[in-house]
Amino acid sequence: MDLAERLLQGDKRAVARLISMAENHDPEAVEILKDLFSKTGKAHVIGITGPPGAGKSTLTDKLAKAIRKEGKTVGIIAVDPTSPFTGGSILGDRVRMNDLSMDPGVFIRSMGTRGHLGGLSKATQAAVKILDIYGVDYIFIETVGVGQSEVDIAKNADTTLMVMVPGLGDDIQAIKAGIMEIGDVFAVNKADRDGAKRTATEIEMMLDFNHSDWRPPVQMVIAVDNNGIDELLGHLKDHKKHMEGTGKLQQRRTLNSRLEIIDLVQEKLMRMILDKSKKEEMINQLAADVAVRKTDPYTASEAILKEI
Amino acid sequence: MDLAERLLQGDKRAVARLISMAENHDPEAVEILKDLFSKTGKAHVIGITGPPGAGKSTLTDKLAKAIRKEGKTVGIIAVDPTSPFTGGSILGDRVRMNDLSMDPGVFIRSMGTRGHLGGLSKATQAAVKILDIYGVDYIFIETVGVGQSEVDIAKNADTTLMVMVPGLGDDIQAIKAGIMEIGDVFAVNKADRDGAKRTATEIEMMLDFNHSDWRPPVQMVIAVDNNGIDELLGHLKDHKKHMEGTGKLQQRRTLNSRLEIIDLVQEKLMRMILDKSKKEEMINQLAADVAVRKTDPYTASEAILKEI
Repeated sequence: MDLAERLLQGDKRAVARLISMAENHDPEAVEILKDLFSKTGKAHVIGITGPPGAGKSTLTDKLAKAIRKEGKTVGIIAVDPTSPFTGGSILGDRVRMNDLSMDPGVFIRSMGTRGHLGGLSKATQAAVKILDIYGVDYIFIETVGVGQSEVDIAKNADTTLMVMVPGLGDDIQAIKAGIMEIGDVFAVNKADRDGAKRTATEIEMMLDFNHSDWRPPVQMVIAVDNNGIDELLGHLKDHKKHMEGTGKLQQRRTLNSRLEIIDLVQEKLMRMILDKSKKEEMINQLAADVAVRKTDPYTASEAILKEI
Repeated sequence: MDLAERLLQGDKRAVARLISMAENHDPEAVEILKDLFSKTGKAHVIGITGPPGAGKSTLTDKLAKAIRKEGKTVGIIAVDPTSPFTGGSILGDRVRMNDLSMDPGVFIRSMGTRGHLGGLSKATQAAVKILDIYGVDYIFIETVGVGQSEVDIAKNADTTLMVMVPGLGDDIQAIKAGIMEIGDVFAVNKADRDGAKRTATEIEMMLDFNHSDWRPPVQMVIAVDNNGIDELLGHLKDHKKHMEGTGKLQQRRTLNSRLEIIDLVQEKLMRMILDKSKKEEMINQLAADVAVRKTDPYTASEAILKEI
């Protein structure tokens, strides 16, 4: 039986295998995803982001358990873009040595950065498709930090959950201002800590400037105590329903598809350029010239473009 | 007098003007940078990164003051990639309403994300060049978070300073593992807090796996009290000297130039594609088709490539 069939029949190892192939840019994975793409779009894809230390992993695990209690299935993709060199899965496996990974209704995968040019975001998008075809009801994309690439990844979802936490200091103001427009649902985790209420109030105040027809709810949770998890899951579902009801889900998916198509075009163009070994040599020579100020990067890039 | 001349003669407003032009993709800024590129490479460029709440802004300010005491000049670029929508400068101006901004030997600029395709990283690289030509002795690139894009930005420096802080919870383990290979110098800020010693020890233990000829020093600091700042500055200078002495500075600058050239080529190609309005329409139509699963993103991107 081939991989595509095994995936359709719910073989968990086929999922793992296909995600690895996608990570390694295996063209067979792309062919399979092309064939089965029409079977995607059923899962509720939820991006989870927020600053380090906010307790996102714990919260994700608790949400997954709440979903399992309802008899639904879930895939978790733990994305770690802070690991540009190792290429492996730093988080995840180590942290997640718990009962969840033994549950047949849960698929967990951690992904680090592979290579430079947007590799992680593309591999994540492929993993979402694979899990969607596999048939899980929910897909969580959980990121480690709250930088631009994490935000890009989390945005590539139907619903974005922003996890905040009290007492992260001044920088958090800047982050809040930046993420206010990304979060569809907010969780203030570690709600038993000092300042939790103030953090929630600050978020609410920022949301007052938001005039869309969806007012993001702000849910207090204590993930370690399983406190507020069902309510949070309810908000996530409500958001999906709202998006479907208003036609915004399709709008958002169109926007995300547009970005994905452009990324793919860009990647293919770059690969075409870099594949020609002559160009590789030329780029290296030009880079060395720039380093010693014999030429400048702008002129160098124009020289390469002229060659194409 | 034209902008280029004003920049060379040390006109601070010319610096601000040129950076704004670079942010707005003004071709005149590129022409000026081409002409004056040979005058770059003199400043010590230091990337400063670390998790939110680590006190990077305060630490940067104190380092700048220590540099000023030695009679040297400094440029500070505060990068905030968590602000993808506002486009303005969230951090910086608000936080930095202090004596530093009045010092003629200090130039401070905060930058948010403009547009999608790597706009921030390119604008930051341009700002570094402009400050270098302007003639400052040190350039700090300070980022808000510790995600992939922040790391990319911080790496684009001669020396990368990683600022850690005690008590950020479990996620920090993952971050540490990822950043270990990026930091040339480590600072443990808020060293009077519980657990500071343990944080430093953990970093040292991870560094034990590093077998390059430069062992990154780990400096305890209390930035608000100006404690450990001179020692930290000493480490930053030592790293630059080491890089120069071993020929590694040029190696790193060649590598960074290579990435910059590739980014520029990529950007120009994409602009060529998107500029043709016919393609824009085609991409939008394909994106809508993908959203409703009429086609898949891989086939869509191939269709666009065929058109080129």
